[in-house]
Amino acid sequence: MNEPKKILFVNACKSRIDTFWNKEAEEKCRKYNFIMDIPALNGDCPEDFNWAELLPDYDAIVTTWSSPVCTKEFLAAAPKVKVLGHSAGSIANVTDATTFETDVRLTTANPIMSEAVAEWSLLATLLAQRHSNQYASFHKGHRMVWGVSDIIWDLRKLTVGLWGLGDTTKNLLKLLAPLRLGEILVCSNHASEEEIAALGAKKASLEELLTRSDIFHCLVGANKENLRRIGAKEFAMMKEGSVFVNAGRSKLSCPDALLEALKSGHIRAILDVFESEPLEEDSPLYELDNVIMTPHDAGYTGRDRFLPFVLDEFDRFFRGEPMLAEITGARQKTMTVEALK
Amino acid sequence: MNEPKKILFVNACKSRIDTFWNKEAEEKCRKYNFIMDIPALNGDCPEDFNWAELLPDYDAIVTTWSSPVCTKEFLAAAPKVKVLGHSAGSIANVTDATTFETDVRLTTANPIMSEAVAEWSLLATLLAQRHSNQYASFHKGHRMVWGVSDIIWDLRKLTVGLWGLGDTTKNLLKLLAPLRLGEILVCSNHASEEEIAALGAKKASLEELLTRSDIFHCLVGANKENLRRIGAKEFAMMKEGSVFVNAGRSKLSCPDALLEALKSGHIRAILDVFESEPLEEDSPLYELDNVIMTPHDAGYTGRDRFLPFVLDEFDRFFRGEPMLAEITGARQKTMTVEALK
Repeated sequence: MNEPKKILFVNACKSRIDTFWNKEAEEKCRKYNFIMDIPALNGDCPEDFNWAELLPDYDAIVTTWSSPVCTKEFLAAAPKVKVLGHSAGSIANVTDATTFETDVRLTTANPIMSEAVAEWSLLATLLAQRHSNQYASFHKGHRMVWGVSDIIWDLRKLTVGLWGLGDTTKNLLKLLAPLRLGEILVCSNHASEEEIAALGAKKASLEELLTRSDIFHCLVGANKENLRRIGAKEFAMMKEGSVFVNAGRSKLSCPDALLEALKSGHIRAILDVFESEPLEEDSPLYELDNVIMTPHDAGYTGRDRFLPFVLDEFDRFFRGEPMLAEITGARQKTMTVEALK
Repeated sequence: MNEPKKILFVNACKSRIDTFWNKEAEEKCRKYNFIMDIPALNGDCPEDFNWAELLPDYDAIVTTWSSPVCTKEFLAAAPKVKVLGHSAGSIANVTDATTFETDVRLTTANPIMSEAVAEWSLLATLLAQRHSNQYASFHKGHRMVWGVSDIIWDLRKLTVGLWGLGDTTKNLLKLLAPLRLGEILVCSNHASEEEIAALGAKKASLEELLTRSDIFHCLVGANKENLRRIGAKEFAMMKEGSVFVNAGRSKLSCPDALLEALKSGHIRAILDVFESEPLEEDSPLYELDNVIMTPHDAGYTGRDRFLPFVLDEFDRFFRGEPMLAEITGARQKTMTVEALK
């Protein structure tokens, strides 16, 4: 048997560890002959905890939300570390441009999280199609409305637009396939017509997506190009009564323009992300009857599968196989950059 | 070209006709060389309208909601009619036991309607899994609850039970497939273990379904055996916090027992069908926070595809091919019998 590989969970927060360090992860470590060290296992690490002192011992590191940013300088203390696995979605919070100058390869549990966001997006698609909040009773005391079922759309005649082609969109396309929607449009700068056709959709420009979609999903990376991209002009381009769905990033759209478009009744919305979270109790969004909101939990399920997935990735890496979710510098450019405001 | 086949739309109600007689149906008639006569096309037929006088001329008849019951006696006036197509779901309202003593073969647009019910059932499954009504805002003025996302279930670990294996269940199984649920159980008296396994599910008894399901769907025919089958004992067998979903028939369960099980908080429910409809404004169901209700519209979409489907069925029949949705006397016995109270 080979020497065990040593992995350090670089996170100071006990509650984060509790979210991820489970029986399945322990079993994966045994199976792959990994030794996992977790400084915060029995309590939060102090603020001045010296990660650099520990790092030379390890072959791989695991990060998650609120882990330190693994800059080139940070990683210089870890000469043996050749792979970093992020037990969460976007790696933007734990990397910067210098990270990509090192020879450390990066992977993430984003494929797992993106499944959950795709599931939420399927739910949002069906709520939008059925106009459910206009006649159903979801909350105590709220009466149903009978005899308005003509407002329900026929899925076979619906155009759904997906802005962006990352993991979530790819997963969502699989979930939408058996619904036999009228048409699915995808706007992506990096994917070809053929690539998109192979996924069961049709490549479209953002303008086509806005003007033709009955349901428009924001699933694109919040990079410089897309920041505040959907403003008053874009909302006006959307079809009367169409639905703006955002499970991606609130900063993809302009919040004032969104509010105006909703107030005018021109569009409806289903939102999981907001400019400030938790959303203020007196937000004007609460005064509208054409918006459904969830408290930023689209990507919530499957967290207990994040770390086991990262450990599978490490095993592939150490055996010289390609990792399934590797993030290269080139790929990172298409993705969400948290630091943008 | 053969002689055109003559079809009579046996329904006295103009608004029913308006629901179904569309461009696509007209085109199908042209394509198949059918002549469709519709007495109510320009206005309701009088109550004493004499269908028997017209019937001898026709090769096929179309029925829908509120059409006359096509008994053996009624059909005796239509010696050339060898096929009846029901432009709706269950044929129970337009047939009786004597209908099956004739040589008239029967078909229905139920495969289309059942797609819509399956779509609703997919939506209900996702709402149940996510516990959405416990933290989301669906209606104006209703605040979101933050920080409770741990109540969301992981689809990969969920057991979903489907009671009954008709068209809706078969369609729902196709929609659920890409969600990779932990386990899908199906309780059916007429399907074998192998048949159910081939559909991606596992055969189970009703007791297993009740005790093991996180989400329990009532999709069985409301025949004598199943009438009021889910009572206090059955609700008590369900898992704490599991979800009773009924898009089938309200009379499959006992309404008082359902109300008690909901009041106690033992289960949750998502309901599309009620003992009396519209549901009374003062129904105690409105006082509960663990129930989501829709106004009996699960099967609402796709109505404009009903008649074209029936015309396709007629074309298959006249060409001597098997019809896709033929209802034989044997099959009818597994299905919903409207007359039961």
